[in-house]
Amino acid sequence: MTEDPYSPALLPTGFVDLLPPEARTEAEGVAALVRVFASYGYDHVRPPLMEFEETLLSGSGLSLADQSFRVMDPETRRMMVLRPDITPQIARMAATRLQRLPRPLRLSYAGSCVVVLPSAADESGRQIMQAGIELIGPDSPQADAEVICVAAEALQQLDIPGVSFDLTMPSLIPALLEEAAVPEAERPALMRALDRKDAAAVSALGGRLSEILTALLQAAGPADRVLPLLARVSLPARARAALQRLTEVVAAIKAQSPDLRLTIDPVEFRGWKYHTGVCVTVFAQGCSEELGRGGRYLCNDDEPACGLTFRPDVLFRLVPNMPVMQRVYVAPGASTDVADALRGRGVAAINSLCAPAEGEAVYYAEARRLGCSHILLDASCIELV
Amino acid sequence: MTEDPYSPALLPTGFVDLLPPEARTEAEGVAALVRVFASYGYDHVRPPLMEFEETLLSGSGLSLADQSFRVMDPETRRMMVLRPDITPQIARMAATRLQRLPRPLRLSYAGSCVVVLPSAADESGRQIMQAGIELIGPDSPQADAEVICVAAEALQQLDIPGVSFDLTMPSLIPALLEEAAVPEAERPALMRALDRKDAAAVSALGGRLSEILTALLQAAGPADRVLPLLARVSLPARARAALQRLTEVVAAIKAQSPDLRLTIDPVEFRGWKYHTGVCVTVFAQGCSEELGRGGRYLCNDDEPACGLTFRPDVLFRLVPNMPVMQRVYVAPGASTDVADALRGRGVAAINSLCAPAEGEAVYYAEARRLGCSHILLDASCIELV
Repeated sequence: MTEDPYSPALLPTGFVDLLPPEARTEAEGVAALVRVFASYGYDHVRPPLMEFEETLLSGSGLSLADQSFRVMDPETRRMMVLRPDITPQIARMAATRLQRLPRPLRLSYAGSCVVVLPSAADESGRQIMQAGIELIGPDSPQADAEVICVAAEALQQLDIPGVSFDLTMPSLIPALLEEAAVPEAERPALMRALDRKDAAAVSALGGRLSEILTALLQAAGPADRVLPLLARVSLPARARAALQRLTEVVAAIKAQSPDLRLTIDPVEFRGWKYHTGVCVTVFAQGCSEELGRGGRYLCNDDEPACGLTFRPDVLFRLVPNMPVMQRVYVAPGASTDVADALRGRGVAAINSLCAPAEGEAVYYAEARRLGCSHILLDASCIELV
Repeated sequence: MTEDPYSPALLPTGFVDLLPPEARTEAEGVAALVRVFASYGYDHVRPPLMEFEETLLSGSGLSLADQSFRVMDPETRRMMVLRPDITPQIARMAATRLQRLPRPLRLSYAGSCVVVLPSAADESGRQIMQAGIELIGPDSPQADAEVICVAAEALQQLDIPGVSFDLTMPSLIPALLEEAAVPEAERPALMRALDRKDAAAVSALGGRLSEILTALLQAAGPADRVLPLLARVSLPARARAALQRLTEVVAAIKAQSPDLRLTIDPVEFRGWKYHTGVCVTVFAQGCSEELGRGGRYLCNDDEPACGLTFRPDVLFRLVPNMPVMQRVYVAPGASTDVADALRGRGVAAINSLCAPAEGEAVYYAEARRLGCSHILLDASCIELV
């Protein structure tokens, strides 16, 4: 213990104690998310907290290497990694023990990850709770759309208001620069300018792509407004195909969930590490942090897959805490049948630890001290006023 | 990925992937445990996976030092520990942020821990799931009994048959040896003999305690049979007081849960590290591993507390897996209202990813391939035969 028990340095930055109302809200909320996922056929799996480094940080996991804590396994002397992300684990399972299951393979998961340092944009710390789904096998706009629509349905069932899904295509800009043969040396400055949405710099650095890049930069916003603008931008073949896929995914989402708020940011690529297709970030009104993110990638380097991961630590700050359970103090000698019936109805019936001889005045005082609304004496449940 | 994807060395020893029926059974089972705990007034908290070494491994956590993985926090350059046990974290919370809450303080928790190497007796590996309760403040037989009775109620609600609670008093033997002034140098050999239940060695090494220790060694078994035997053993004051407390705890349990199967092993002390009073191990018929354990300790070195931790990874191997959800294939163009109604009734309604033009024969084949029992065409749910 440190000298000051209230010191914020009691726990390392980014690790927190979740206290009663929040901890229960999160636990029940995650269970509710997993049940929505299951109702769309996503089966629950639970990969471990640690894996061998060469397993977890291979393939799509490689980009996570600098965010991973490592320890040596004293048994094998091989390095193990504390998982910074669950998606690569699901990919590994799909490629090994679940390899023979029919595709599309739908899986869900929920658990904690740990990253070495939180990213600057991320207020949520280093222990990151994840709850999500992966759809493995098909590579189609319908599959991309399903993941987004299931996620939207889960948020609706949690009563999260003002949700929007921001779509992007992280491969669009790299494809464009490559097809236009922009020299490698010029790309980093241009990418930084695009990342900062700095129109002047993009125009100055873009060379013969200036016009196209400026048009893409300006075409960010609601899907309905932006897609017609994008359709008029003249793009080379691969960039055109990327944009075409994005358009098809929007159409597939609208067919399933016509009221979903969709925005598009065609030049957004930051934070997408192993993704190869349409990607999505989930936001809610009045919340600066993202509720979740996902997209298309290659599962274990060769099988098409897409997924979406929610951040329950952000999500459940947006819903009211679950109502505190009603508390009833069960005095010594009170009916255990009545107490059990109360428990069956969702009441916290707290057994007295007083000796039977202490008398009713003591029980009433204890009941009040423990925040109970009622006291159970014999078979009578009496309200405390 | 290793060359053989089915190689057992894909994951480090003691870390496993939990697959669909087991993962769902565990997740729902842990949620059910936490709900039983809450119905007795135990509020849910969620401490973090990692803490600073000097915080987590102080006080009652000190004995866990050799079982803990450590990594350096790059921000503070202080060492952090991956928790090997949750109970010391609850003790820390009770002594800091929850210090001002009224006592008795009842808390519950559920989460994963990691130990460096599994103990030889423990087949469950290095990632250990824990779900348990702590009752902080009172030091009374009623408090010891409450924790055991709540645990018993949770197991009953999970339909675990043949449960027994094995009570012990790890402080009894050390108190006896000290009161009888057994020389320090002789104690280790005697403790080992007691640990092995080696009556001949105990008799040979026990000196003037031989008779008492042999009597204690033989007095192991059902509480009803053993307590009268123990009452006849002549013990010095502190050992007598320890036994008296054990007797009172049995009486308090019987008053609440008369049918609970209680056994006593008065010389058992192995595996109790920071405990100071009556301890308990939970077993079930036909299962060699313990389902849980707990006991009395000093919370943060000074506040009386007792608790019990279940091992869900052991526990949920004893219950049948949750029934697999019924799966219905939702063909393109089928009624989304009917599909949503199915989902609301606990069915997995799996949306087709086929194009609408592919036709019914394709949908039927897909439905069968994905293990569906029914197919939803328009608004009709048709059984697959």
